Amino acid sequence: MAEIGVGMLGYAFMGKAHSNAFKKIAYMTWPPPLEPLLFGIAGRDEQAVEEAARRYGYDYATTDWRDLIADDRIGLFDNVGPNALHAEPTIAAAEAGKHVVCEKPLGRNADESYEIWERVAATGVKHLCAFNYRFVPAVRLAREMIDAGELGEIRHFRGRYLQDWGDDPGLDTWRFHPTEAGSGALGDLGAHVVDLARFLVGEFATITGFTKTFLPGRTVDDAIEAAAEFESGAVGTIEATRLALGRRNAFQWEINGSKGSLAFDMERLNELQVFRADGDRARGFKTVLVSETNHPFWEHWWPPGHIIGWGDTFVHELHHVLRAIADDSDIAPYGATFEDGYRAAEVCDAIVRSGESGTRESLSYRTL
Amino acid sequence: MAEIGVGMLGYAFMGKAHSNAFKKIAYMTWPPPLEPLLFGIAGRDEQAVEEAARRYGYDYATTDWRDLIADDRIGLFDNVGPNALHAEPTIAAAEAGKHVVCEKPLGRNADESYEIWERVAATGVKHLCAFNYRFVPAVRLAREMIDAGELGEIRHFRGRYLQDWGDDPGLDTWRFHPTEAGSGALGDLGAHVVDLARFLVGEFATITGFTKTFLPGRTVDDAIEAAAEFESGAVGTIEATRLALGRRNAFQWEINGSKGSLAFDMERLNELQVFRADGDRARGFKTVLVSETNHPFWEHWWPPGHIIGWGDTFVHELHHVLRAIADDSDIAPYGATFEDGYRAAEVCDAIVRSGESGTRESLSYRTL
Amino acid sequence: MAEIGVGMLGYAFMGKAHSNAFKKIAYMTWPPPLEPLLFGIAGRDEQAVEEAARRYGYDYATTDWRDLIADDRIGLFDNVGPNALHAEPTIAAAEAGKHVVCEKPLGRNADESYEIWERVAATGVKHLCAFNYRFVPAVRLAREMIDAGELGEIRHFRGRYLQDWGDDPGLDTWRFHPTEAGSGALGDLGAHVVDLARFLVGEFATITGFTKTFLPGRTVDDAIEAAAEFESGAVGTIEATRLALGRRNAFQWEINGSKGSLAFDMERLNELQVFRADGDRARGFKTVLVSETNHPFWEHWWPPGHIIGWGDTFVHELHHVLRAIADDSDIAPYGATFEDGYRAAEVCDAIVRSGESGTRESLSYRTL
Amino acid sequence: MAEIGVGMLGYAFMGKAHSNAFKKIAYMTWPPPLEPLLFGIAGRDEQAVEEAARRYGYDYATTDWRDLIADDRIGLFDNVGPNALHAEPTIAAAEAGKHVVCEKPLGRNADESYEIWERVAATGVKHLCAFNYRFVPAVRLAREMIDAGELGEIRHFRGRYLQDWGDDPGLDTWRFHPTEAGSGALGDLGAHVVDLARFLVGEFATITGFTKTFLPGRTVDDAIEAAAEFESGAVGTIEATRLALGRRNAFQWEINGSKGSLAFDMERLNELQVFRADGDRARGFKTVLVSETNHPFWEHWWPPGHIIGWGDTFVHELHHVLRAIADDSDIAPYGATFEDGYRAAEVCDAIVRSGESGTRESLSYRTL
Repeated sequence: MAEIGVGMLGYAFMGKAHSNAFKKIAYMTWPPPLEPLLFGIAGRDEQAVEEAARRYGYDYATTDWRDLIADDRIGLFDNVGPNALHAEPTIAAAEAGKHVVCEKPLGRNADESYEIWERVAATGVKHLCAFNYRFVPAVRLAREMIDAGELGEIRHFRGRYLQDWGDDPGLDTWRFHPTEAGSGALGDLGAHVVDLARFLVGEFATITGFTKTFLPGRTVDDAIEAAAEFESGAVGTIEATRLALGRRNAFQWEINGSKGSLAFDMERLNELQVFRADGDRARGFKTVLVSETNHPFWEHWWPPGHIIGWGDTFVHELHHVLRAIADDSDIAPYGATFEDGYRAAEVCDAIVRSGESGTRESLSYRTL
Repeated sequence: MAEIGVGMLGYAFMGKAHSNAFKKIAYMTWPPPLEPLLFGIAGRDEQAVEEAARRYGYDYATTDWRDLIADDRIGLFDNVGPNALHAEPTIAAAEAGKHVVCEKPLGRNADESYEIWERVAATGVKHLCAFNYRFVPAVRLAREMIDAGELGEIRHFRGRYLQDWGDDPGLDTWRFHPTEAGSGALGDLGAHVVDLARFLVGEFATITGFTKTFLPGRTVDDAIEAAAEFESGAVGTIEATRLALGRRNAFQWEINGSKGSLAFDMERLNELQVFRADGDRARGFKTVLVSETNHPFWEHWWPPGHIIGWGDTFVHELHHVLRAIADDSDIAPYGATFEDGYRAAEVCDAIVRSGESGTRESLSYRTL
Repeated sequence: MAEIGVGMLGYAFMGKAHSNAFKKIAYMTWPPPLEPLLFGIAGRDEQAVEEAARRYGYDYATTDWRDLIADDRIGLFDNVGPNALHAEPTIAAAEAGKHVVCEKPLGRNADESYEIWERVAATGVKHLCAFNYRFVPAVRLAREMIDAGELGEIRHFRGRYLQDWGDDPGLDTWRFHPTEAGSGALGDLGAHVVDLARFLVGEFATITGFTKTFLPGRTVDDAIEAAAEFESGAVGTIEATRLALGRRNAFQWEINGSKGSLAFDMERLNELQVFRADGDRARGFKTVLVSETNHPFWEHWWPPGHIIGWGDTFVHELHHVLRAIADDSDIAPYGATFEDGYRAAEVCDAIVRSGESGTRESLSYRTL
Repeated sequence: MAEIGVGMLGYAFMGKAHSNAFKKIAYMTWPPPLEPLLFGIAGRDEQAVEEAARRYGYDYATTDWRDLIADDRIGLFDNVGPNALHAEPTIAAAEAGKHVVCEKPLGRNADESYEIWERVAATGVKHLCAFNYRFVPAVRLAREMIDAGELGEIRHFRGRYLQDWGDDPGLDTWRFHPTEAGSGALGDLGAHVVDLARFLVGEFATITGFTKTFLPGRTVDDAIEAAAEFESGAVGTIEATRLALGRRNAFQWEINGSKGSLAFDMERLNELQVFRADGDRARGFKTVLVSETNHPFWEHWWPPGHIIGWGDTFVHELHHVLRAIADDSDIAPYGATFEDGYRAAEVCDAIVRSGESGTRESLSYRTL
């Protein structure tokens, strides 16, 4: 079986999620496109990164990510570090000829994101910005239904990503530091909403809104609120907050089209709500448990009704990357490329600008 | 038992809802504050209004609403006519010394609404703008919980009123005519969202957004999208649409505070979702079936769990008016006065202006 | 408009429900089959029954139900008194030529129920046993779907009626007295489950189970548990309890057939869960808000999505009776006749016998 | 790190589930109690078992399970073969000194199950009957709440396991063959309901019910229906079916106690419905997303709200076995021992006997 060497930057929350995915790909997606070999893992805390190497089975740990770049056995560089560490290592890896995965948000703003995209695209490697929610089976099913015209013309997208862990004045994490994170709920959660809107509805045309910080002393935003128009003429809202008490990971969205509607909640990620305007007297939203043999990604899993978990979305995502590398096929449209990462950043920046200027922002996107 | 004569302008959808409420008040809310006597009903279609009089038990029907104003036995004038017929008859009734109820939106815009308020307030009669959703038991319970501080400081309001009957190119109704209706989803549905936001969260400070018309040839808006700031510092979104396929009467809102959250859907109007940050290990939203003996309005109804219907909200609303008349007590804060009707119109107008100008609008409210 | 005089025995919970229904029929179901005129109401507590007469608009109150029988203006006798008062007055009314409605359970056991049926049937009047849940729109829709073959062959019925008000050692009511009530949860709640099973699935063939009393000193059952076979070959369970904490009026049932399934919960009585094995890739239960213009009973109500309440089921039920009287049409199959009341009692008795004997009981039903 | 050699009999559905669990334990439950080394895997189909060995990383494949018994490096024998292959290999493994895991149902009936238990218990090895649903976080949380007295005295258990894959006349599998499977829905699904009832409510005292086969030509049961009494005085129902169209893996149960209630559905296995009779005016069932840091098993996973999948329950289950082996701690009470496997079989047999005899069966359990 063909193999690929993997090097990972980062070992905490996302490091666990991605390492687990590479390990499961080897036997859950059988046969895998490429067998991932976990060579090196890098991080700042020597003891912690060494333990991570033992735990996940990496050959070695290092506190210098350049060791991964220098390792010729590594064909895929997976950057799950803090946002401030996205640009330089990712670009370096690509320029060293490695395929690259980078966690979202791609950069801390549109300029940085554009630079990453530009520099990496120039190398010709495969690049994926890890908007993993595109790889939820229910989300992919939604995309397939929309592509097939089952919803008709899309009129509305209303997306909100609600968490509540931010409601802790004593908590400190790199996610609260502007230099490391770039922004707060905006880049962390809002970027997911923006990407999914683009994935399902298409390009943003205008956006008007603002960011909001509630907790005294916090220097990143706690929440964003925006109203948007899409190039297609659809309209909707984009919201994200870390202060919606009782909502743990409630990335909820609803789409209304001229032939039907879809609704989703990440806390019930195995379900898709489907309404069809088909004239059935028994009219209503159907709770589809997305776990059938003819549903996306389900060939890897269990009998129908035996649901998967949040962590399994990374299996699908990284499997997609391995398939693209193995077959020299495209990351797009199902995976988010670095261009997608950059475009999401443009929309996020526009929300910030709108909040500052008080005006509705028209989106324009740079090209290469 | 003390009595009050009622005259009604309008006999269709809202005429049925209000007439039914007056008839039920007489025995469901026992003893009623005042026994409503249905004297006269007015409408444009002679045959239809005469049948309505027979059906609901009004003494007489008329095609001239001035007959109601001239009828001295009528102490309460209830205006459920189209929006264009709100101002003149309502003002005339008040100036004739009758207490007045007027359906929402109060006027077709803020100017007209202000004039109605100003002229009616000058007469000293009781006035209620019929935002009936304030009288849903779950909504009142929400208000009581917020007033008691159970949610702490409010941070978020996200409200959307979703219907789908507008998705019919062949349909015609006064609601699609700008002259008669003033606006589309904005005044019809958006005004409800605005009023409920004001009722539960407080006054709007700024709003940015726009209206949207989807169907070719339609001359009123089909939808609105907006992001808002409240005077309290809370932020959120306001949405309304007549084109959310599959949503029949889904007036949904969620409020997040520093101590808890509430969520609601009018299609399940007997339920309130309640989250309390109380440290319970079993943490989550509680589905409260608002039908307990210690819940709002429930003294009028059935044993717990035996739910009420949408039509019953009008019983609560008009009972509130009769109580205010009988006891010379205030319509506010639980009922919406004409000032509330005017203020909702200011917010709706600001959404229109924001859409046209592309700027965030700061709200200011006229006083008497 | 043709009219009918109504006499009612009982003025409490069910008296309120039935009186309200008669009053609403006069204008909500327009034009009504017959206009109900509320002549007399009878009860044991003189002061209370007199207040009920004033409240609901009966011409007179009496403490002797025989006064109602003697009143020739009364064409419909509605017996909503305690179970022990079902037999004699109902039979007397029928034998006086009045049409009769009797609350469920018809009698305190099968023998008494049979006698009521036999004596009343002999008179030729219309008779309805007030299993009002047959008149929930979602239940009628279920029946229509089953009749149309949309579920195929029925295989399973699982019905449970869960309440929790019985969990109060200090509470006293006639419902806890064997002489007045006949049984506890069995006749009060279990009879509803049995009737609905018969309405939707057909006749019971065998049943095995038992009753259970939990609270010390209570002399009626708190709960029943049973497994059943139907004549059609379907199988299922029948449960009822007054001690399911947190369930207020949760009459829940599910039916599985060879082509689809249905599920229902009375606490959300406007909704029917519908699954069709139609090969749709988007496969799942649909939440049907039963409020469309082509749904049962909806011609009387509001626009789609504007839900009705528990009390409104009685409007449908008594409207059905008035229609049967006016047109000399049949109460069956949509309404429960006294034969249905008797048959439900046979099944309830069989559960008691099974509990005592420890054997599965085969059902047999007496005929006239 | 201490290690343990694993041998597995079976490689299909359950072989995948258990192999995946062993692989994930090594890094998700960090540090694992013992590092599982996958030595040998056995199955009837040579090609398939060899591919399974490659896929999951077993050192070798064999078509003779005795090879696993003979392999001294194997300290844990995991039997996920068809029911007919449970007794002999499991007993042989234990008698060779290996700890044993055996899929449910333990044997094809109570006699066979008793023999397995008796023979294995005599060897002194650890034994677990793989009722994996005990290891769903929500189920464990339920158990902990009940143990802590939070529900008070248990009054009701109503459990049903609903699937629909059996509705396929053309389907063939060992699960439809009495010799291989012992029974149909009874041992496959009903045993899960029985075990969970025992886990949460305690021992069965009596049961009355029957099995049912719907599809022509099918020689195992499609469904079971039963009413039960527990030794504690609680009562309830036990149901299982493979013909509930639309229900894919709906293992649903509800428990009512004197202080509260719990409800659960395996299709939403991350959620537990919790009702507390605590006098809160906001009264209702709470939807608890069982994913908090203080929830069972959650130390192994993700931040709150990032849900796990069905396959992850096996991680918890086999981790529990490894912990018991490493620490010489007990499988009971959180894991099901072979005694639990035997007792579940006694209850299942009693349902069959009750169906045949038409009488309520009293349970008695053999001891060693």
